[in-house]
Amino acid sequence: MNLTQHQTQSEFKFFLTGFLAILAVGICSVANAADPLVSWNEGPAKKAILEFVAAVTDKNSKDYVEPAERIAVFDNDGTLWVEYPMYTQVLFALDRVKTLAPQHPEWKTKQPFKALLEGDMKTVGASGMKGLMEIIMATHSGMTAAEFEQEVSNWLATSKQSRFKRLYTELVYQPQLELLDYLRANGFKTFIVSGGGIAFMRPISEETYGIPPSQVVGSSVISEFKVKDGKPVLMRMPKIFFIDDKAGKPVGIYQHIGKRPILAFGNSDSDMQMIEYTMVGEGRRLGLFVHHTDAEREYAYDRKSHVGTLDKALDQADANGWIIVSMKDDWRKVFPGK
Amino acid sequence: MNLTQHQTQSEFKFFLTGFLAILAVGICSVANAADPLVSWNEGPAKKAILEFVAAVTDKNSKDYVEPAERIAVFDNDGTLWVEYPMYTQVLFALDRVKTLAPQHPEWKTKQPFKALLEGDMKTVGASGMKGLMEIIMATHSGMTAAEFEQEVSNWLATSKQSRFKRLYTELVYQPQLELLDYLRANGFKTFIVSGGGIAFMRPISEETYGIPPSQVVGSSVISEFKVKDGKPVLMRMPKIFFIDDKAGKPVGIYQHIGKRPILAFGNSDSDMQMIEYTMVGEGRRLGLFVHHTDAEREYAYDRKSHVGTLDKALDQADANGWIIVSMKDDWRKVFPGK
Repeated sequence: MNLTQHQTQSEFKFFLTGFLAILAVGICSVANAADPLVSWNEGPAKKAILEFVAAVTDKNSKDYVEPAERIAVFDNDGTLWVEYPMYTQVLFALDRVKTLAPQHPEWKTKQPFKALLEGDMKTVGASGMKGLMEIIMATHSGMTAAEFEQEVSNWLATSKQSRFKRLYTELVYQPQLELLDYLRANGFKTFIVSGGGIAFMRPISEETYGIPPSQVVGSSVISEFKVKDGKPVLMRMPKIFFIDDKAGKPVGIYQHIGKRPILAFGNSDSDMQMIEYTMVGEGRRLGLFVHHTDAEREYAYDRKSHVGTLDKALDQADANGWIIVSMKDDWRKVFPGK
Repeated sequence: MNLTQHQTQSEFKFFLTGFLAILAVGICSVANAADPLVSWNEGPAKKAILEFVAAVTDKNSKDYVEPAERIAVFDNDGTLWVEYPMYTQVLFALDRVKTLAPQHPEWKTKQPFKALLEGDMKTVGASGMKGLMEIIMATHSGMTAAEFEQEVSNWLATSKQSRFKRLYTELVYQPQLELLDYLRANGFKTFIVSGGGIAFMRPISEETYGIPPSQVVGSSVISEFKVKDGKPVLMRMPKIFFIDDKAGKPVGIYQHIGKRPILAFGNSDSDMQMIEYTMVGEGRRLGLFVHHTDAEREYAYDRKSHVGTLDKALDQADANGWIIVSMKDDWRKVFPGK
């Protein structure tokens, strides 16, 4: 081997090792794909998100936020997955009444169970919130935490949405999955803050959204630690522990997260307090609402809808600097897959 | 410059770059210091911890646990920091009564406040749990969440423990800090699950233990979302929301974490249910208790103590496979620093 050869080899090794060093550093740092929000159309909503994330992650920006303070909260129904024409958890509860009916002969004469079992949905509807709560309590308590989790998992693994004929976990919004990933890649911790049941969301939150159960905040029943068949278990009781909706959302955030979010994403007037609480903090903040404007690819509903009512928030958005995300205009794609 | 010089420089660059590559990879991977638990003496407790972590992180082990399921929970008082001769939060409450007294002329005649302001601790003690709860409610509610956080931070930044004349945040256990770091370096998520107030621990949990507020589970008062001076705030109300103690601990874990831990560490009979709940899960588990046996370096107390009573758990430890960690024998060092 002559010197020139040696020198070339040495330089090659030098470049190779340098390349490996860069690669290793690259693995450590945030992966910068060409477009992290490929299912978002170019427009004011996407622009606002990208600018916000750039500002709070840039150490030289006056808006810089330490990673530990990068908390993002998302409503679930209508914000991360389909809620129309009826909240998924309510459909689960209605199905459960049918499944449990043989063990409850008293339901044959007791409303709203009687009407539900007879398919008289008008009477069920007329029973209002009180009737719905009776159905929720009857179907969401009286079993162990593990048993309930299994019931939810089984139901979600087999039940399909009426119009799209797909599992509910397949009717999540692709642009939101990308946004969750994008936020996490930029050091954010992502939470669900939903009026829905915490125990109904957790069995699928990790696989579906990459959000572990400990980062799911929701409504819940009281649980008690008891010994059953000689084994300690958690029993679900027929009594509300916490309602994580409307003014309950900031409370849930305080109890569960313990920090004020810097980004909040909802889709209905029930999310206004969560977004107000987020926006009122110091420094740069971002508040967004999904506006369901896409009857063709999903649904179109807002002010007059019985689910996901978006009325006051639409009126107040401009004055408060909230971003209204139009499903039709801002999302290139709605669901994962084709 | 001659060739030899060039060659040498090139080789130097080669080694330098290689060193940087190794360094970068090293930052990515788990830091494997010679002994991650250097403040633990060699003995059965340290051995049990090391073997447990090795087993659940080894993909070829029958005891392997996916990172998402590696949940570790720690009690706070007496497990992570000093609780003797009185729980830190109670001392905070007693101090707050004195601070707030000018705004509460009625306390001059109302027990247990009267006795407390007169320094008659015997009468305060005789008021029992009911009296203590009155003191806690009077000092922990009636302000916004942000105001309370500030009060706690100020107090903890200035108040010193009676015997050691150090801040309470300096009287954390060095071996436990190492254990928390070691668990996290091995993919565990670490939580505090304490009977103490969640809002009392959170202001210092991140800096002191590396545990963010969202991973702190504790007792709490009811909070309400209200508008104060035109700004939405969370008001702390004089009513208990949740007591995260004894049988409340597994409930708190279910409500807040949503997964069963695989490791639980306590120090008193109040932690038994948490540890039972942890141990009864499938697969390999580890349950541990700090036994305060070190009157010289900290305190010695167990069965007859009014704080951190460790009695039944001592009797049942062997039969249940719980590890009793003797502060005197198992810890080389108790507090950080010298």
